[in-house]
Amino acid sequence: MPRQMIATLLTDFGLRDPYVAEMKGVMITICPDAHLVDITHAVAPHDILGAAFILAQSVGSFPPGTVHVVVVDPGVGTEREILAARLGGQYFVFPDNGVITLVAQSLPLEQLVCVRDKRYFLTPGPSGTFHGRDILAPVAAHILLGLDLRRLGPQPVKYKLLELPNVREESEGLCGQVLYVDRFGSLITNLTDAIIRKRYDALDRVRAQCDGKDCGPLRNSYATVEPGAPLAIINSMGLLEIAVNRGAASRVLGAHVGAPVRVCCPNGPAHPKE
Amino acid sequence: MPRQMIATLLTDFGLRDPYVAEMKGVMITICPDAHLVDITHAVAPHDILGAAFILAQSVGSFPPGTVHVVVVDPGVGTEREILAARLGGQYFVFPDNGVITLVAQSLPLEQLVCVRDKRYFLTPGPSGTFHGRDILAPVAAHILLGLDLRRLGPQPVKYKLLELPNVREESEGLCGQVLYVDRFGSLITNLTDAIIRKRYDALDRVRAQCDGKDCGPLRNSYATVEPGAPLAIINSMGLLEIAVNRGAASRVLGAHVGAPVRVCCPNGPAHPKE
Amino acid sequence: MPRQMIATLLTDFGLRDPYVAEMKGVMITICPDAHLVDITHAVAPHDILGAAFILAQSVGSFPPGTVHVVVVDPGVGTEREILAARLGGQYFVFPDNGVITLVAQSLPLEQLVCVRDKRYFLTPGPSGTFHGRDILAPVAAHILLGLDLRRLGPQPVKYKLLELPNVREESEGLCGQVLYVDRFGSLITNLTDAIIRKRYDALDRVRAQCDGKDCGPLRNSYATVEPGAPLAIINSMGLLEIAVNRGAASRVLGAHVGAPVRVCCPNGPAHPKE
Repeated sequence: MPRQMIATLLTDFGLRDPYVAEMKGVMITICPDAHLVDITHAVAPHDILGAAFILAQSVGSFPPGTVHVVVVDPGVGTEREILAARLGGQYFVFPDNGVITLVAQSLPLEQLVCVRDKRYFLTPGPSGTFHGRDILAPVAAHILLGLDLRRLGPQPVKYKLLELPNVREESEGLCGQVLYVDRFGSLITNLTDAIIRKRYDALDRVRAQCDGKDCGPLRNSYATVEPGAPLAIINSMGLLEIAVNRGAASRVLGAHVGAPVRVCCPNGPAHPKE
Repeated sequence: MPRQMIATLLTDFGLRDPYVAEMKGVMITICPDAHLVDITHAVAPHDILGAAFILAQSVGSFPPGTVHVVVVDPGVGTEREILAARLGGQYFVFPDNGVITLVAQSLPLEQLVCVRDKRYFLTPGPSGTFHGRDILAPVAAHILLGLDLRRLGPQPVKYKLLELPNVREESEGLCGQVLYVDRFGSLITNLTDAIIRKRYDALDRVRAQCDGKDCGPLRNSYATVEPGAPLAIINSMGLLEIAVNRGAASRVLGAHVGAPVRVCCPNGPAHPKE
Repeated sequence: MPRQMIATLLTDFGLRDPYVAEMKGVMITICPDAHLVDITHAVAPHDILGAAFILAQSVGSFPPGTVHVVVVDPGVGTEREILAARLGGQYFVFPDNGVITLVAQSLPLEQLVCVRDKRYFLTPGPSGTFHGRDILAPVAAHILLGLDLRRLGPQPVKYKLLELPNVREESEGLCGQVLYVDRFGSLITNLTDAIIRKRYDALDRVRAQCDGKDCGPLRNSYATVEPGAPLAIINSMGLLEIAVNRGAASRVLGAHVGAPVRVCCPNGPAHPKE
């Protein structure tokens, strides 16, 4: 059976301009059997954290050997490196701006190189404005074809990781924050299932607050509360999510990326009944 | 020749979040040769009728054996069933919320089962928030690979159909309404070519009104009226459409989903000349 | 090795309605091995010049034999012809409204026919509203399968080309204008690298103005100026682009399609130092 050749694209190019199609044209010219999957092209321009989140969330659903191309690259044309990496059996080609941060938290880093060998570029002299097409797309296509990453360039001395907000353990509970707001207006936080379980034995007695507003106990589905009511749930990513049944939590609670979210257990061991 | 393996996706997930890519990753992991086609992901959140319309309109262009995955699912995580069906030689995997209604009006129902066998799920314990990725995507991929629907679960005792507005036959004419407004602002109605032909022999004497405003006789193309003028036409779906040449009927006529549309024949047999 | 069968789609249909999926369904029914790539479906309704620009920019990244289907077609259902052409080894199926203009400036026209033979249509009697699905999609799929263009119909006596704004050579410099504004708000002009080099030997002494506002000398990357500052750069298309580092030039400079852009060389031979 022929090897599967799956590549994904994640950019802030939008879907109105020719840029995404140009990258795809370059990739299938080099690797005609590539199966190209869009992750998204609607990352807010230059939003590296948003892209990092979407990438980390997506990779879990793709098979080993998939090549992920990420082009959210406000530093295009500067001295920033382009990197190629293998983490957990999957490949990544991306500008060295921290967009790999959240993937690197969940998958083991197996290989990391600087993308420098111009033989794998579209042309020896790439444009100063569109490395997605001129460097990242052709390099990704060559990796799909089996190129050994070490051929691309040396290991970098260091690479950039974003400084992410930490979850704080306080006496009243766990304090995290909103990391991402999805199209339904659901507020996805940095409070993981694992962190919450580590602190609290009995998840059924835990309650969540968003921006100081009570969101009740942890639920198993959106529809367990009345339409329009807020709720807290461990979502499909294993992250605490604040949502509103058939509504937008971002609107109902007036909360955005960075809003504080707290998990506590008012009747639990940390807060004995008075 | 190998069997074609086409699957379509129709969701209200938008294109900004990782959700669609996660579904695709799951599907091509199970069925590497799947040819995935997006129908749309821009259904308004939870708009089951809109999704039903788009689905019914799309299926006629796909070959037998295509598997359509529909995830507009405000009831995710509740007791609502997920269903798998064959209608007119095509397959459908969808939550039991009526989204199949318009397809079921145009294609014969050949098979219908509840999706319950967890062996075809992504994991035996799916999330309570993302059945699209955890149940519908992997089940669709297994159907692409040839899975017999009966393996998924029993026939449902009943399933949900939407109550759609009927066309009323009145002495002055046929009364229908706007069912869908497309990106051009064209108003697509529930008045079918067949219904109009049944009542009126001479289509060239028929006139249409939308929300009380005259839209003239039936035309053969948008460009038969002046730019900016409204017109009525039997569209590519065989439905009466109210449009504006090089403009948006929804704006020009101030009409939305639900607006009344009337077809009459002022000089025809139903209304003899005075 | 089997021939690669790549087709692209470029329309003003948006991604909300079923229209794009209907075209794709028709194409893969006829040509199951087609590899379909979206260029964009977000062309402003009926914006022929915008589509012409995006098409011309995209084609350079696709391999010979690619079939490009363009459906920006305000004249659908009128007597306007549908054309099929080969330019520079690539194929194009499009309404005769000038959308091919910019491709025709950069690739040699090798073959051009009217699409008339109804045997290659979806049905002998296409709808008056959706030639994309009923004519262009099936004809493109047949071309993918190897159909000789001459089977489609006769050569047209003439075909439409858009009248584009010319670059004017004035004593103070070269005068062009903004042709396209991309999602980043960057202003792409009709001033080509070649035109500028023809007039000025020393590109490093050239300066650009947009709408009367100075944008400085030509840069090699966006990040060579401060965030928020405007700059001029020869972009990945070989066109002069006015951009703002990490910002939107359209907003910062208040400029739109048609805004005047000037390139001059204040200290160069045309303007000797005073």
